[in-house]
Amino acid sequence: MNEQFRAHIEKLSTINDEQFDYILSFFKPKKLKKHSILISEGDTVSYEYWVAKGCLKASYVLQDGKERIIRFAMEDWWISDYDAYFKKNPATLHIECLEDCEVLVLSFDDREKLCKELPEMEYFFRKKIEGAYAAFQKRLISLLSSDAKERYDFFLQQYPMLHKRVSKSIIASYLGITRETLSRISNL
Amino acid sequence: MNEQFRAHIEKLSTINDEQFDYILSFFKPKKLKKHSILISEGDTVSYEYWVAKGCLKASYVLQDGKERIIRFAMEDWWISDYDAYFKKNPATLHIECLEDCEVLVLSFDDREKLCKELPEMEYFFRKKIEGAYAAFQKRLISLLSSDAKERYDFFLQQYPMLHKRVSKSIIASYLGITRETLSRISNL
Repeated sequence: MNEQFRAHIEKLSTINDEQFDYILSFFKPKKLKKHSILISEGDTVSYEYWVAKGCLKASYVLQDGKERIIRFAMEDWWISDYDAYFKKNPATLHIECLEDCEVLVLSFDDREKLCKELPEMEYFFRKKIEGAYAAFQKRLISLLSSDAKERYDFFLQQYPMLHKRVSKSIIASYLGITRETLSRISNL
Repeated sequence: MNEQFRAHIEKLSTINDEQFDYILSFFKPKKLKKHSILISEGDTVSYEYWVAKGCLKASYVLQDGKERIIRFAMEDWWISDYDAYFKKNPATLHIECLEDCEVLVLSFDDREKLCKELPEMEYFFRKKIEGAYAAFQKRLISLLSSDAKERYDFFLQQYPMLHKRVSKSIIASYLGITRETLSRISNL
């Protein structure tokens, strides 16, 4: 896991062995069983998670009780309820493991400390959140688009191979369409 | 404008006079007439804009030709097509002035240079985009919510006083509802 994490950081920031050991000391590894819940609606959120192995979903429960999946995270992605994590609001999202997962856990205070002490990590986290913001803009536009096929194409582009790992009903919930429509527009 | 901009930066980062003069040297002031277009769909986007005065909208044109407003920006907000600005993709958004505007313009390269040279600005921009990401998560959830009144309340919370500055049809386009529904759920 450690080599994978270092390679992930070094995609954006060059760090030496000593710096990596120091960075790693802020993260706690955690193994989670499929269906484990990381965040529930209303929670105070003090942690974000880097995914070493497995797949998770962040979803929102609508007034009618139906669940809409906002985003996924798999290997090398980060996940949290960022409105709750960054802004100290109560969580609005529900985050759950879709497979057995291995994650590295980072607290908000440790994140700030790391950024303050290592310019390489401030740069790393700035670039990560810029990328996440850009992806979120695309996601929002794909949700506004009424064309289910376009939404499905965006899903394939954003999460390559994920359609082989999660159920059709999960993909349909992300796309906001029925399983029947999903079957029609895809080969699933 | 300069004092307003300095106060805006100092909400997050403490800087001295010399640093502020240096920061300011990267920004170009620009006056824009109402209806001026800053970004059109398909554009290469090299700039972001800090709003000193006025109000702008970022919108997306749906397949049926209808416009959906993604977000607004007014005094002290930043605006661009961030998927295009950060990721060098062609613009998907249309950004237009809803009033006469005064903005400060920053190029992507200058942004990176500023962040590299001044840790205070790297911190500032990290915090700004974290806040923007959190707001975008809320916006996405408000769009998924089928309750028009909840969407309207989110609009009021996100953009206090804006309902006094823009037309009903603009607000309806942001909320994704008709003007009649807007009249019913608000006092507009």
